[in-house]
Amino acid sequence: MKDLQEKLQQRLKEREPEIIELRRYMHQHPELSFKEEKTAKFIADYYEGKDCLIKTNVGDGYGITIDIQGGLPGANLAIRADFDALPIQEDTPFPFASQNPGVMHACGHDGHTAYMMVLADTLIELKDELPGMIRVLHQPAEEIPPGGAIGMIEAGCLDGIDHVLGAHVMTNMTLGTIGYREGAIQTGRSTFKLKLQGKGGHGAAPHEANDTIVAAAHFITAVQTIVSRRIKPADTVTVTIGSFDGAGIPNIIKDSVSLSGDVRVMCESNLAVVEEQFKQILDGICQAFGLTYDLDYSSDYPVLMNDAALTEMTAKAFQEANIENVTDIFRCEPQTPSEDFAYYAKVKPSSFFYIGATKEGEEMFPHHHPKFQIDEECLLIAARAMGSAVLEYQFNGVK
Amino acid sequence: MKDLQEKLQQRLKEREPEIIELRRYMHQHPELSFKEEKTAKFIADYYEGKDCLIKTNVGDGYGITIDIQGGLPGANLAIRADFDALPIQEDTPFPFASQNPGVMHACGHDGHTAYMMVLADTLIELKDELPGMIRVLHQPAEEIPPGGAIGMIEAGCLDGIDHVLGAHVMTNMTLGTIGYREGAIQTGRSTFKLKLQGKGGHGAAPHEANDTIVAAAHFITAVQTIVSRRIKPADTVTVTIGSFDGAGIPNIIKDSVSLSGDVRVMCESNLAVVEEQFKQILDGICQAFGLTYDLDYSSDYPVLMNDAALTEMTAKAFQEANIENVTDIFRCEPQTPSEDFAYYAKVKPSSFFYIGATKEGEEMFPHHHPKFQIDEECLLIAARAMGSAVLEYQFNGVK
Amino acid sequence: MKDLQEKLQQRLKEREPEIIELRRYMHQHPELSFKEEKTAKFIADYYEGKDCLIKTNVGDGYGITIDIQGGLPGANLAIRADFDALPIQEDTPFPFASQNPGVMHACGHDGHTAYMMVLADTLIELKDELPGMIRVLHQPAEEIPPGGAIGMIEAGCLDGIDHVLGAHVMTNMTLGTIGYREGAIQTGRSTFKLKLQGKGGHGAAPHEANDTIVAAAHFITAVQTIVSRRIKPADTVTVTIGSFDGAGIPNIIKDSVSLSGDVRVMCESNLAVVEEQFKQILDGICQAFGLTYDLDYSSDYPVLMNDAALTEMTAKAFQEANIENVTDIFRCEPQTPSEDFAYYAKVKPSSFFYIGATKEGEEMFPHHHPKFQIDEECLLIAARAMGSAVLEYQFNGVK
Amino acid sequence: MKDLQEKLQQRLKEREPEIIELRRYMHQHPELSFKEEKTAKFIADYYEGKDCLIKTNVGDGYGITIDIQGGLPGANLAIRADFDALPIQEDTPFPFASQNPGVMHACGHDGHTAYMMVLADTLIELKDELPGMIRVLHQPAEEIPPGGAIGMIEAGCLDGIDHVLGAHVMTNMTLGTIGYREGAIQTGRSTFKLKLQGKGGHGAAPHEANDTIVAAAHFITAVQTIVSRRIKPADTVTVTIGSFDGAGIPNIIKDSVSLSGDVRVMCESNLAVVEEQFKQILDGICQAFGLTYDLDYSSDYPVLMNDAALTEMTAKAFQEANIENVTDIFRCEPQTPSEDFAYYAKVKPSSFFYIGATKEGEEMFPHHHPKFQIDEECLLIAARAMGSAVLEYQFNGVK
Repeated sequence: MKDLQEKLQQRLKEREPEIIELRRYMHQHPELSFKEEKTAKFIADYYEGKDCLIKTNVGDGYGITIDIQGGLPGANLAIRADFDALPIQEDTPFPFASQNPGVMHACGHDGHTAYMMVLADTLIELKDELPGMIRVLHQPAEEIPPGGAIGMIEAGCLDGIDHVLGAHVMTNMTLGTIGYREGAIQTGRSTFKLKLQGKGGHGAAPHEANDTIVAAAHFITAVQTIVSRRIKPADTVTVTIGSFDGAGIPNIIKDSVSLSGDVRVMCESNLAVVEEQFKQILDGICQAFGLTYDLDYSSDYPVLMNDAALTEMTAKAFQEANIENVTDIFRCEPQTPSEDFAYYAKVKPSSFFYIGATKEGEEMFPHHHPKFQIDEECLLIAARAMGSAVLEYQFNGVK
Repeated sequence: MKDLQEKLQQRLKEREPEIIELRRYMHQHPELSFKEEKTAKFIADYYEGKDCLIKTNVGDGYGITIDIQGGLPGANLAIRADFDALPIQEDTPFPFASQNPGVMHACGHDGHTAYMMVLADTLIELKDELPGMIRVLHQPAEEIPPGGAIGMIEAGCLDGIDHVLGAHVMTNMTLGTIGYREGAIQTGRSTFKLKLQGKGGHGAAPHEANDTIVAAAHFITAVQTIVSRRIKPADTVTVTIGSFDGAGIPNIIKDSVSLSGDVRVMCESNLAVVEEQFKQILDGICQAFGLTYDLDYSSDYPVLMNDAALTEMTAKAFQEANIENVTDIFRCEPQTPSEDFAYYAKVKPSSFFYIGATKEGEEMFPHHHPKFQIDEECLLIAARAMGSAVLEYQFNGVK
Repeated sequence: MKDLQEKLQQRLKEREPEIIELRRYMHQHPELSFKEEKTAKFIADYYEGKDCLIKTNVGDGYGITIDIQGGLPGANLAIRADFDALPIQEDTPFPFASQNPGVMHACGHDGHTAYMMVLADTLIELKDELPGMIRVLHQPAEEIPPGGAIGMIEAGCLDGIDHVLGAHVMTNMTLGTIGYREGAIQTGRSTFKLKLQGKGGHGAAPHEANDTIVAAAHFITAVQTIVSRRIKPADTVTVTIGSFDGAGIPNIIKDSVSLSGDVRVMCESNLAVVEEQFKQILDGICQAFGLTYDLDYSSDYPVLMNDAALTEMTAKAFQEANIENVTDIFRCEPQTPSEDFAYYAKVKPSSFFYIGATKEGEEMFPHHHPKFQIDEECLLIAARAMGSAVLEYQFNGVK
Repeated sequence: MKDLQEKLQQRLKEREPEIIELRRYMHQHPELSFKEEKTAKFIADYYEGKDCLIKTNVGDGYGITIDIQGGLPGANLAIRADFDALPIQEDTPFPFASQNPGVMHACGHDGHTAYMMVLADTLIELKDELPGMIRVLHQPAEEIPPGGAIGMIEAGCLDGIDHVLGAHVMTNMTLGTIGYREGAIQTGRSTFKLKLQGKGGHGAAPHEANDTIVAAAHFITAVQTIVSRRIKPADTVTVTIGSFDGAGIPNIIKDSVSLSGDVRVMCESNLAVVEEQFKQILDGICQAFGLTYDLDYSSDYPVLMNDAALTEMTAKAFQEANIENVTDIFRCEPQTPSEDFAYYAKVKPSSFFYIGATKEGEEMFPHHHPKFQIDEECLLIAARAMGSAVLEYQFNGVK
C-alpha cells in the first residue's frame, strides 16, 4: 500500500493544473442551490467514458454518484464533495470571477468538486490495485435547507456504503494545516420567523393601543434566559434574534413587528430544549402583553458528529502521507456553521475534516463574503489528504 | 344667621383650652384600630347628660353617633371625626406623649375628636336657634381596612342624613391654611401579596432548577408597562412593589420569593383596570418562566370624591367666617393617602377638607412618623371652619 | 352690542355658501407646509380692495395679517386660522377632492381659512360700529415644526395685540358641540431619533460581536420607567417608541438599529424632565452594553395653555349668541395633538376652542386620515362662534 | 513493584476496621474551617513515634505534613487529604453522629483523613522498598475561601515535590466506581455582594423617590446577557444571583436592596471576563437609574486543572491494581463545586479523582446536606486507589 500511496500522491501533484483549471471554470459558472443543472452536466460529462458507474439526478435534484470498483475485495467508502454556489455578487479582481451576476462560489464548493473530480479520476486509474469500492458523492444544494444530502440518501446513495468522508476548505485556517476532531464538529440549527401582532394607535393614547415594540423588547430580554438559565452550562447553545423589523412613525404605536433568528447547538437534543423554551416564553409574553403571534420555527441541519475511530484513522493517514507543504495536522475546535454532511453521519460512521486555505500573512475573507477567496494551493493538499485517507481506509480499515 | 355664626366662633375661641385638654388626654391614651374601647367610653361619657341622642357600638366596633336636633326645620348634616391610633412607638419630648407603649396618635385623630367634641357641645348650646339636625359621627378604625366607616354605614349612621362633612389636620400644609377641592381628593387603593414558586438548586446547574429571582425581575419590569402603556395618560395611577423578599445564599438558586405592593388611583374604575392588567402580566410571566404563584390581591378604600356643590359651599363658609389666623383658603392638590371617609361619599354627597397643622418655619414630620406633631392652634381653626360650614349648610344649604 | 351681534350672526348665515365655496376651492388646491405660495396669494387677493390693512410674507413664509380697525376705541384682538395641508393622498369620493396628488387638506385648515375669510370680510362691513382693532392671522405651516406661528410672532404679528383666539374643527367631536377648556389644552411635544451602534457578527459567536437588538430591548424596557416611576403620577406624560428599524438576517448579529419616538406632556416642565431621564437611561444602557449612539432629540411645540379668563369669556359668548344648531357647549378634555397656536399663548393671553365636525351617526375619520372629512355645516358654526367671541371681547372685554 | 502493590493492597484490606474507626471518631468530633485545633492534634498524635517527618502548624492554620522517605531514589509525590467540617446540624441516626452541635462532617473529609492516615502508616511500613519520597498533606479549611491550601503552599509544603494527587468521596457517584478526567475538572469561582442604594418614599409619589427594586430588576435581566451574549458559547459559565434581600412595606418605595451571587467557570480566564462585564453592566444600570452601589466582588478558588499525563497514569494504576469491588473506572464529567486543591495544581502537575460513595439502590444525600452519609466501604477503595497510584508513580513515573 505504501507504494500505491506514493504513486497516488505523485499523480495528484502532476495533475494540480487540471484541478485548478476545473475549479476556475466552475468559479466562472456558479449556480444556485437546487438549480445546478449545468454544473451537474459539467461534472457528469467529465466522467463520461471512464471506467466507473455514473448515476445522475440522484435524489430530488442534480446529485451524481460515481462508483469506482477496486480490483480487490474490501470495504466500501463514500467520499463527498458539494457543488452549489451562493446568491452573492462577487467582488474580486480575478480574471476567472463569476460570469453569473449575483451568484458566486463564495464557500469553496468549486474547489471541493474540482479536487474531487481529479482524485476520482486518479483512483479510477489505480483501481485494479485497490480493495473495496469507492463512491464519489457529487452533492448539490448544501447551502439551503433541507439541503441536497437528505434527498441523495433517500435515493440510496449510501446503500452498501460502510463509511463516509468529507472535507471543507477553510479560509479561517492557515494554508498548510489540516484540522480534524471527533464528536460534535459543526452545529445543528433551528431558524424562526415570528410576527407579533398588537394594536396600533396614537402614541399619546397608549391605553387604546397595544404597543408591540415594548412587548417585543420584553420578549427579547426574556429569551436571554434560555441560554443563561435553562441550558446545561457545559453545553454550547446560542439563540440569536438577528432581525427586528419594526420601522414606523415616531408618534404612532406600532401594531405589529417581525422578528427572525437562529439557534445553534453542539448537542442535538438541545434543539428540542430550545424550541420548547422559546415557545413557552413566547406564549407567556404574548399572554402577558395581550398579543397574538405567527411563528414559523423549524430545525434544519443536525449536529455533525464525527465518528471517533474513523477520525483517528484520517489523522493517522494525513500524518503518514507526509503531504508536501502540510505544516500542522491538529485537533481543531468545533466549527460554528452547520453542514448537511451531518445527514450522512447520522446514517453511517463518517468524518469531516478541514483544509486550511489562507496563506500566512495574507488577508482573510470569511466564507460567504463578496471578496471570499482561497489560496488554490489548498486544493492539491485537499486531494492528497482525502486520497491518503481513502488508501488508509481501503487497505487498513478503521481500528 | 350672621349673629349666630359670630356667637359660635366666639364660643369656640373661649373653649380652646378645653379642646387642647381633651386632645392631650387622648394623645396620652391611644388605642389601636378596632380596639378603641376606652377611647369610645371617654367620648360617650363626655356627652352623658347633654341634650342630644347618643348611640354607642354603632357598627362592628366602637362607633358613636350624637344627634343634635335643631329647633327649626332644616336639612340633616353628618360631621365626622375619627379616633383610632397607630402601632408606632412615639418619639417626642412632650409631657403628654403616649403612655401606651408602641401605640401613638401619629395621624392627628386625637385632635379631630377633641375639636369635634367641643364643637358638638357648642352646637348643643345653640341648638334651639339651629335649623335641621346635626349628627356627629365619632368613627373608630380609620387606619386599617376595611375601616370603621363601612360598618357604621351598614348600621344606619347615614339614615336620614342629606350630606356629610369631614376634615383632616395636615402637617404638610402650613398652619393658617385651609385646603378644599371638588372631585377626586384622596386615592383609592389595592394591595397585593404575591408568592412566586420556582425550583431551587445549585447556581452552577441552573437548567435543573428554575430561578425565581430572575423570573421575578422580568415580572417587575413588565409591571412597569401598566402605568407606562395601559392606563390613560391623563389618569393618576401608581403601581408600587414595595417588598421583594428573596434573601438567600449566593450560590443557591432561590426556589421562591415573595413580593408585596400597592396600587393607588384617582379614578376608581382604574382599580379594576390595574387588577386585570396585573393578573394578565402575572399569568403570562409565570407561564413564560414555568412558575406557579399564590396571589392575594384586594382593593380596600375607594377614591374619595368630594361633591362639587358642597365643597363650594364649604369654601364660601370658610371665607365668610373670617376665621382668625387663617391666611389662605385654597384649592389644594389631591392627597396621596387613602381615607375611609370615601365610603360616606359613596352614599351621600360629601366633602372632606384639610387644616394646615405645621407652623411656618417649624420642622415638619409626616403623618405616621414617630416624631409626628401638630401645632395645637390648628384645632381651634378646625373647629371654627367646621362650625362655619355647619351653619352655612343649615341656614343657606347647598347651591 | 346685542343688535350688532344679531346682525353679524345673520350676515354669516347669509354668506354660508361663500364659506363653502372658498373651502372647496382650497380643498382642491392644497399645498404643503412652508410651500403655500398659491394659497397665500389666493387669500391675499380676497382682501384686495377691502378696507383693511394687508401684510403678506409675514415671518419666514407666507404669513398674512389683516388689520380691521374699528370705529370706536377698544382693545386689540388677534384671531388665527392656519392654511397648510398634509402629505397624504386623498381617498374620498368628493367632486372637490384634492387635485394635487399626494397632498391633502386632511386636518380641516381649508375650512378654518374659509370661515375666517368670510368672518373677516363681514367684520370689515361692520367695522365702524366696532371698538378696538381685530387682526386676522392667516398662518401657514402649522403641521411641521417649528411651525409658522413662531416666525410670524418674531415678525411682529402680535405687536399691539392684547389677546388671541383660535379654533379647530374636530372630527372626534359631534357636529353642534363647541368645546372649551382653561389651562393645558393641547400637549407639548419632543421627538427623538436614535441610532444605537454595537458590532455585527455571526449569531453563533456573540462574544465576538455586540448584539444591538438585545441592548435596544433593554433600553426600551428601561424607558418604561420614565412614566411609571419618574413622573409625578398626576401629570400627563407619554413616551412612545414608534419605530424600531432593525431588519436583518436571522443568523447575523445586528450591528446597529435605529429607533424613533415621541414624547407628549400636558405640563411643559415635564419636557425637560423626560429629556433628562431619557438621556440618563440612554447613557446608562449604552455603558452597560458597550454601545455608542447618535441621538437627535428636540422639543418642538409647547403645551398650549388657555387663559382662564379669556376662555370663560368665550364660553359666555357662545352661550349668549344662541347659535343655531349648537346643542352643547362643554368643558372638553385636553386634546392629544400638539398645536403651534401654543406659541401665541406663550406671548399673549390666548384661548383655543373646538368645533364639532362629525354629524351624529355618521362615520368618523380621524385627522390626518386619507378619508378625513368634515360636515361643512360646522364652518358656519365656527364663523358664528368666533364672531360671537370677537364681539363679546370688543364690547365687554375679559373679566 | 507488582509484589509490593499486592502487599500494599492486602495490608490496606486488613486495616479497613482501623480506617472506619478513625473516620467515626472524627465524625463525632467535627471542627469548623480554620478552627480544627483538636482534629489536627488527633492527626499529629497518630504519627507520633512513627518513622516519618512530622510538621505541624504548616501555613496560617493547622496544616500538617508527613514526609515518608523511601529507601530507593525516585521522584517526590504529595498526596492530600482535607479535614475540616461544616456549620451544619447533623440529622442522621448514626451512633457516631456529630457530638458538636451545629457542626458536621457533611462533605466526607473525615473519611479522606481516615483512609489517608492508614495509607500513610502502611507506606511507612513499606518505605524501605519504595523509591522517592511521599509527602502526606493533611490540609485544614478546604470549605471556606481562601482555604487552607494556599497557606500551606506559601509555607513550603510543595517544596521539592514533583507531582500532587488528591481524591474526594462522592455521594453522586455509585459505590464501586472511580472517576477521573484530564483538564478542567472543578469550577473556578467568584462571589459578589452588592448593595444598591436608591431613595425611599411613598409608593404614590415615585417621582420623589428612586425605586431600587425596579432598578434591581433591570440589573438582573441585564446580567443574563453575560452568559447569553458575552461569553464564548463553548465555554461553561454561570452567573447566579442567589439572594435578593429587599423585604419591605407594600406602599413604601424601597431605598436600598442587597443582592449576592456566585460565578462559576471552567476556563479560568472567564473569571476576569465575567467580572469586567458584571461591573460594566452594574455601572451602566446604576447610571441609568441614578443609583449608587457598594460592591464586594472577589474571586476565590481557581479552576482545578488536572494534568493530562498524571491523570492517565492514575487511571492506568487503578485498572492494573484490580481493586476488589471496583466495577467501573470512568472518565467522568467535570464537577460543579470548586476545590482549593486547585491551588496545588497551579504550582505542580496534579490530579484529583473521585471515589463513588453511594451503594447502588440506596438513597443519596448531596454533599452539605444534614443527612449526608457515605457508604464506608468507599474508604478502603479510596485507600487502595490512592495507594495504587502512589506505587505506579514511584516505580513507573508519569509518561
